Amino acid sequence: MMESLQAGNELEKIFVSYGADDGPLATIRTQAKRAGVQCSIMDRRKFQVLERALNVGPNDAQGIIALRPVRASTTLASLLEFVLGESPLLVALDGIMDPHNLGAIARSAEGAGAKGLILPEKFGSPVTPTAVKASAGALEHLPAAKVLRMSEALETAKKLGFKIIGTASPGTIHYRKADYTGPCIIVLGNEGEGLHPRVQQICSQLVEIPMSGQIASLNASVAAGIILFEAQAQRA
Amino acid sequence: MMESLQAGNELEKIFVSYGADDGPLATIRTQAKRAGVQCSIMDRRKFQVLERALNVGPNDAQGIIALRPVRASTTLASLLEFVLGESPLLVALDGIMDPHNLGAIARSAEGAGAKGLILPEKFGSPVTPTAVKASAGALEHLPAAKVLRMSEALETAKKLGFKIIGTASPGTIHYRKADYTGPCIIVLGNEGEGLHPRVQQICSQLVEIPMSGQIASLNASVAAGIILFEAQAQRA
Repeated sequence: MMESLQAGNELEKIFVSYGADDGPLATIRTQAKRAGVQCSIMDRRKFQVLERALNVGPNDAQGIIALRPVRASTTLASLLEFVLGESPLLVALDGIMDPHNLGAIARSAEGAGAKGLILPEKFGSPVTPTAVKASAGALEHLPAAKVLRMSEALETAKKLGFKIIGTASPGTIHYRKADYTGPCIIVLGNEGEGLHPRVQQICSQLVEIPMSGQIASLNASVAAGIILFEAQAQRA
Repeated sequence: MMESLQAGNELEKIFVSYGADDGPLATIRTQAKRAGVQCSIMDRRKFQVLERALNVGPNDAQGIIALRPVRASTTLASLLEFVLGESPLLVALDGIMDPHNLGAIARSAEGAGAKGLILPEKFGSPVTPTAVKASAGALEHLPAAKVLRMSEALETAKKLGFKIIGTASPGTIHYRKADYTGPCIIVLGNEGEGLHPRVQQICSQLVEIPMSGQIASLNASVAAGIILFEAQAQRA
């Protein structure tokens, strides 16, 4: 954390548990103030609530939690302009709530060759330390645009020539029969509810992974990985 | 838990936190004794250690933790005999340590049409409540054989005509170029270390998922899902 602070404004906000606010943590606070990073002291109970909300164990946090912004945070317009010439693959998250899934999906997206993420401003997991860890660095490498309304963002992308492929169960096409070549956005929905109806309407295709057993669905980040690597195979 | 106890011996062992041992929990203890399920009372600190080890939140456990055996637990011999006529797909876990991964892989295996699991007796995640939850029921549906030595188990299967396909990075073949048809076991290695060298030697092929970005590898359960659904596609 010290390194991040010394390197500039890589941190968005720091929370310190009351009582843990001495020794090395006091030094971090001083550094944070100098770097212009907002620093809040919380009573222990509130801090524990924050730990639980962020899915951080007490041994991980040790009295201090720092939120990093998505490193390559950008606007939708500049993300789309920036990558459009490359006929890119992008990944949009429409309501993924679990930080582990956010991180694992970002990792798979980067591994499959995606050039950026579209994340919801609200109604989605924030980029917590758990998400950053699960992403194995992808959330720091990949440009990510946060958007207020996912359906509007996807409409804009569609007008610019992006193919919008959503995931659904049931879908309209087997995931291996869809065409993921060219400028393409794969949209992944909420763990339980799937895509919002308005987002579904914008998708040119709704791909489905057929299940061979008794269980109805896959883990959200596994399903995302399977579709992303089908796209990788087609685009190779 | 009450329902499980009344239904017979579906629970392997119950741990109750000292101090939580009254009211409804006392009834559960009585039922457990009647059903012949081992029941331990632990002091709160030890119970918390257990919660952390099993990756169970305090709100999930509420003073009581029950371990279920893999429901369709079986021996290797009977698993192999049971399924061999069907030219089946099986999944072996060689050192998967994270209960979330164990559960998600079991879920993907079931979804991809696998007929059983081979799990290590030691050196792997036990079937914790977290794993059962992450498996969405797969750990209760799929027959699973626990084996003392994975390499010996795979040798036995190989002699019976199973193709043994391991995952590795680097591997010897692109995962889409391997042949997953016929009686086949897909072997997945430890999250960090991959497959044990002795297990690698038994594999007829070591498949690799090529990564298009800067990150070297995928989440273990995502990688497993991608390979399992390639197998599903080939076997369809």
